[in-house]
Amino acid sequence: MKIQVKENNYTIDIVYKCEEKIKNFLNKNRDSKYLVITDENVYNLYSERLKNIMYGLNFYIFKFPAGEKSKSMENYININKFLLENNFNRGDIIIAFGGGVVGDISGFVAATYLRGIDFIAMPTTLLSMIDSSVGGKNGINFMNLKNQIGSFYFPKYVYIDYSFLETLDDRNINNGLAEIFKYSVLKDKNLFYYLKSCNKLDYKKIIYESLNIKLDFVKEDERDKGKRQKLNLGHTIGHGIESLSNYKLNHGESIGIGTIYMARAAYKMGIAKSDFSKELILAFKNHNLPTSYDFDTDEILEILKHDKKINKNLINVILPIKIGEVINKKVTFDELREIVELGKGNE
Amino acid sequence: MKIQVKENNYTIDIVYKCEEKIKNFLNKNRDSKYLVITDENVYNLYSERLKNIMYGLNFYIFKFPAGEKSKSMENYININKFLLENNFNRGDIIIAFGGGVVGDISGFVAATYLRGIDFIAMPTTLLSMIDSSVGGKNGINFMNLKNQIGSFYFPKYVYIDYSFLETLDDRNINNGLAEIFKYSVLKDKNLFYYLKSCNKLDYKKIIYESLNIKLDFVKEDERDKGKRQKLNLGHTIGHGIESLSNYKLNHGESIGIGTIYMARAAYKMGIAKSDFSKELILAFKNHNLPTSYDFDTDEILEILKHDKKINKNLINVILPIKIGEVINKKVTFDELREIVELGKGNE
Repeated sequence: MKIQVKENNYTIDIVYKCEEKIKNFLNKNRDSKYLVITDENVYNLYSERLKNIMYGLNFYIFKFPAGEKSKSMENYININKFLLENNFNRGDIIIAFGGGVVGDISGFVAATYLRGIDFIAMPTTLLSMIDSSVGGKNGINFMNLKNQIGSFYFPKYVYIDYSFLETLDDRNINNGLAEIFKYSVLKDKNLFYYLKSCNKLDYKKIIYESLNIKLDFVKEDERDKGKRQKLNLGHTIGHGIESLSNYKLNHGESIGIGTIYMARAAYKMGIAKSDFSKELILAFKNHNLPTSYDFDTDEILEILKHDKKINKNLINVILPIKIGEVINKKVTFDELREIVELGKGNE
Repeated sequence: MKIQVKENNYTIDIVYKCEEKIKNFLNKNRDSKYLVITDENVYNLYSERLKNIMYGLNFYIFKFPAGEKSKSMENYININKFLLENNFNRGDIIIAFGGGVVGDISGFVAATYLRGIDFIAMPTTLLSMIDSSVGGKNGINFMNLKNQIGSFYFPKYVYIDYSFLETLDDRNINNGLAEIFKYSVLKDKNLFYYLKSCNKLDYKKIIYESLNIKLDFVKEDERDKGKRQKLNLGHTIGHGIESLSNYKLNHGESIGIGTIYMARAAYKMGIAKSDFSKELILAFKNHNLPTSYDFDTDEILEILKHDKKINKNLINVILPIKIGEVINKKVTFDELREIVELGKGNE
């Protein structure tokens, strides 16, 4: 399966173990040097497959410990040093081989080394396959804030091979699944009912449908100033929950809870006609996704003060009005406090 | 005088002490916080004018020692910390008030803080007025290499007030003048003869004409992959000379010498019909610009190995074929060695 992203001139291949696709792409640039950026977990699992993909090419590997801590300024500097010391120039290419952390830091390095060199995304987690590997956002964490520094920069090619999902545990799959639920609430009622009732997921289908929804929101608003912001459904509270839990809840779990809270608040505010948060909770429970998290409203608001979506003291919140449709609302911090309180409610 | 840059949606005002222009622009965003980034020299000279311009607005000042050393990763990190600690968000704005160093690092911070916030350029040197303040390139130095890390990102407004030139010494003026000579060799014979014969420069005229030439080369090739590269006339050898001189020669002086060497080489290679390097030398001497620099070819080639314009072991050199026209030639390192040798020659 193939998606052509015309606006930003790249191709996404969605395949099951079809390495010829990426080998063909890489072999078009046989004169280039490649830097594969990856983490130790992914490397330990897939070094043989990686070597097969890179066979015959001039390539280097840069790996770091798996996990959010590696998305740091220090690591960003180290990768830049490595590129420089190995004389990488503008014709050379970065491959991001891993999940969101690898993709985000690799994309930021690619965007800024020599003011930008090409990069290729080879995501290995469900979350990165359906979210961060497309859309052009990249970044690193800074002073404990997520993606505080970063840019918008698009890959030249995205190779999504869902055979890589076979080594992921359930919680990691769910990390992506919650974002797919979010896409369904955003725009696709049928996808929601498919996810709700289904037990054995058809990855090809859900990856393809998720990417099409994401790309539709991105294409008219690459720089995230309008329509694209709707992709942040569940993320305002979600980021706060993720942070308050000290990352014991993962990204998907947190924004899933955020989505439920927004649905509940939307109903109580009279924006949504029915309280479909109940339906979300049932669907989430079917996939062992958490559906609530206890927190202090003041504590979460303190974290949300640094939200990137704040503009002139107003913050954007995305409220679902039914399954398949959301609205974008700019609110003050006092209004946000009320929305958070309404969202908490009882199950 | 006003230039409207349609492609990237910003305005350049070229004025003499007409601060109402910038005040009007800033007052359209009265709700924003401003960070003025500047160096200590500029601040000491112009703190009163700055305070007048910023009067009534919510602004902060971040200043650092003048000079190339401040274009560092460390300084980049410090500015990001300052923004974060003062809760700057996406609706807030950076103002770069100074020369090229201030503009380059400020632009890179603006491009990457929260994945990009708005910035305004207020250049104070002739070089930054006619070159780095427009065109979108920014960056910091890294491991002794210039602009090794950076991006492409455009300002929202450029305020060029050439009254700021009144505190510049002759060498600093010449730093810009050499780049204006370069523009004339690139595209405008009349500008060349004006510069050559003129003793009292009409700043408004030369700034306006230089920017129009630069913008013409940038607009079809923002990302520097084709036509825009011609703006690098004199820069390949020039960057090497600047570095070999340990920055005792400034940027303009170095690329001026580079332009002379390229003209001489082009003639000896049969690409240029006449040896107009002699005419360049006469013109440069009229403005007390240096016209040669002794260096070892191997030493300069070692530096040029890190040139950002290298792509797959080929390097771009720009060779003038007459005053007002240049060609772009991709050469190997061995060919570059020959060109450098031909360029050296005798005066």
